[in-house]
Formats: sequence, structure tokens, C-alpha cells
Amino acid sequence: MKRREFITGLGAAALTVAARPWAAEAPQLRIEERRAGKLGSGHYRIGALVFDDYETLDLHGPVEMLGHLSDVEIELIGPGAVARSFQGPKVVVDRPLTQLEPLDLFLVPGGLGTRALVQQPELIELIRRQALMSERVLSVCTGAALLAQAGLLDGKRVTTNKAAFAWVASLAPDADWQGRARWVHDGNLTTSSGVSAGTDAALALIAEVRGEAVAQKIAEIAEYPWNRDADNDPFAITWGTHT
Amino acid sequence: MKRREFITGLGAAALTVAARPWAAEAPQLRIEERRAGKLGSGHYRIGALVFDDYETLDLHGPVEMLGHLSDVEIELIGPGAVARSFQGPKVVVDRPLTQLEPLDLFLVPGGLGTRALVQQPELIELIRRQALMSERVLSVCTGAALLAQAGLLDGKRVTTNKAAFAWVASLAPDADWQGRARWVHDGNLTTSSGVSAGTDAALALIAEVRGEAVAQKIAEIAEYPWNRDADNDPFAITWGTHT
Repeated sequence: MKRREFITGLGAAALTVAARPWAAEAPQLRIEERRAGKLGSGHYRIGALVFDDYETLDLHGPVEMLGHLSDVEIELIGPGAVARSFQGPKVVVDRPLTQLEPLDLFLVPGGLGTRALVQQPELIELIRRQALMSERVLSVCTGAALLAQAGLLDGKRVTTNKAAFAWVASLAPDADWQGRARWVHDGNLTTSSGVSAGTDAALALIAEVRGEAVAQKIAEIAEYPWNRDADNDPFAITWGTHT
Repeated sequence: MKRREFITGLGAAALTVAARPWAAEAPQLRIEERRAGKLGSGHYRIGALVFDDYETLDLHGPVEMLGHLSDVEIELIGPGAVARSFQGPKVVVDRPLTQLEPLDLFLVPGGLGTRALVQQPELIELIRRQALMSERVLSVCTGAALLAQAGLLDGKRVTTNKAAFAWVASLAPDADWQGRARWVHDGNLTTSSGVSAGTDAALALIAEVRGEAVAQKIAEIAEYPWNRDADNDPFAITWGTHT
């Protein structure tokens, strides 16, 4: 197996040109502005990957919750001009995946479309680079397959969709796969279980970044019965991944 | 108050030109095809209203669940070419709201944008017509405000977002407003409470149309802890609408 890079501990300080040649492609001004605080202490920049046959709620559950943060900006990033969900409706891509930019959070949804994406090395490489330029990464469902294929999960404590567990786990045999977890935090990486688990993981992330009260308020606005317990995963039993 | 029309009992049989002059605008061929069963006994055609500042999960929660039905078609219908959600990401409009077509289900999400829409009589009239051409109507959150303004809720047992309850209820004082309900079925009209309640209502609707086992399976695929009890509404207490 080729040498793979980890994303542990990656923060603003890690975004140096010397350590990562590809960082030269990134708009350095934005990084400098950010270091100088020009993007605001409250500003939170999120990029979400979209592709054909992404699973609707993988993306829009977290977007719902994160989008209620103050001073937040959510962009959809993808290989095409639009992305058609597995369910049918299409979203507009705001920024091409080739245009890498530093993010506070890189959201990686899953869905049937991940089966095709893992076969496309150039796209996987762009996903890897975008992940490495992001303060945090949150994968939902089989979005973990994309991070696995990019070599970003090895040595990490991670989870994924329970119905596709064996396939995703096969892409990163050196990861520490959790068969029973609604979501798992490991450093700046959060991986969630299937589809709606991403919504709970997003709220947990909001609680970490902006405090528990903010997450609680957002859950109330959305009239969402937030599952706060990462170990509360009834679907591990449904799908038989708990043993 | 001007005379208002109800949608109770509206089905394929009600889609006659004589009863509703505006039906002449609809593509009659599709209606005839449908009566002849050409669209298939299993085919289920859904149109979802979208507009600027719609609330993300109001739309995409139900779309997630309904989109797993076999032989389903989901179109986004709106006044513009794209619709920007309150959270930022944009969806592509598949069909202009002026092009009315018969639907099995008309999904009406809410969001901050409804405040502007209720002030636009021409749009409200189109929403009214599209609702009347649909076998069933499901509103989520303040989507009920649009139906209320269209005169479609009078005399109905209905609910809406708990945080905006007083405003929405003021638009249809003759409706029977339920302050404590996750969702309410009344004939072919389903109104749900805020945001994530729409996901539970959509599953309840799936159970009604395709059977409980199908709804249960879809909830499991989405790893979604389905609230099956329309009376289980903890947010009525959070927002003080339960008394």
C-alpha cells in the first residue's frame, strides 16, 4: 500500500506551502486574510461536496443545522455545474472542485454516486486536497468511502452507513471501523453513520464549535429531536454491524 | 371574507374542466393518460414548491423519504429558474409554477420566504390551483401559511410551525388549528409542524399510500428514528403552543 497522509491536527498552521506542494494552488491571500482575522472571528466557511446520485438528506440535514449559525457561508462544490440527487431534485454547484479553497468545514455526503466516484482517481485526489485544506471534515454515510479511497481514514476511528458497511470498510482496511456509532469524532475528522445520522453529527459539531446552547437552540428551531449520544445507534442492530 | 374553496375529497374525478375553469390550462392528455392508467398504477408523481428563502429540511426531509418509493418522480416547481434556500445552497427549478400539471402529491415547504410570498396574490393563486390539481397536499412548517392565504385551510384540522404559530394561524382564522401535533391528516390534506416534522409526516403519508412496511424500510435505509405518533410533539411544549 502506498504511503498515505493523515489529516490529524491539520489547522491553519498546517496550511504552509513547504509542507504541501498543492497548497501553492490555493489562494494564499485568503489564507493570510484568515490568519489576520479578516474573515472574522465569527465567520464560518463551509464547503459541501455534491455529485450525481448524492443522497439528499446526507447533504441537506447538516446544511439545515449548520445554516442557522450566525455569519455562516455554505457553498456547494462539485465536478459539474449541477448535481442531481438520487431522489431527483438538482442543486446548483457554486464552485468547481478544481478551485481549492481553505474551509472551516468540508462536508462530504454519500449516496449511490460514491460507487462511481471511487473509480475516478483525479476526483478523489481533489477531494483529498480539499479535505487537507479544511479545518474540519465531516463525512455522512458513504461519504466515508470517498475519504477512505483518498487515504484519509487509515489509523482513524471512523464509521459509515450500516447498510454499506462492508464495502466502505474494504476501502480503508487500516482504519478502526466502529460498527456501532451514530457518529465518531477523531481529531478534526467526524464520520457519521447513514443518512439522517449526519444531522446529529452536525449538531454535535456545532456544540463543539459554538457551544451546546447554540446547538440546542438550532435543534429547537428545526423541531428536531436531536440524538446527542454518539453511542446511541439503534440501526447498528437493524443492519447487524453491532457485533 | 370572500368565498373560499376546499380541497376535501378532490381526486382524479374532480379534475374536470366544467368544475374548474383553470383546469383548461392543464395538459388534458396527461389527465386522460392517467385515467387510462398509462402513468402506471405504481407511478407516483410529486411536485414540490420552491422559492427563495425556503427552509432546507422542510423540502429535503420529505424528498429524502418519498424519493425512495419505487417508480416515483419528484419535480421542483417555482417562480424562478433557481431557488436559494435560507441556508444558502440553491436548487434547480424543473418546471415553472405557471405550468400547472396534475400531481399525486403537492409538497409545500415553508421558511422565511413565505412572508414575502403571502403578499403576492398571483403566486398564491397559482399555488391554490396547483393544490387543487393534486391528489394530496402536504405542507411543512410555514408552508401552511401559503395554503392558508390561498383559502385552502378554512374548516380544516391543521397545524404548522410552533415558533410561527400565531402568524400562520392569523391567515386562516376559520381553520381548526392544532397547537400540539407533529402532523395532522384531514382528508387529502396533511399539514406538519416545523421543519423536521415534515419528514415524519412524509413517512406517515408513505405508510398510508404504500403500506407501513414500505415506510418502515425507507426509515431504516435512512437510519431515521421515525416518530410514528402524530400526537407525539415535544416542541409544542418548547414553544408554548400546547395549551
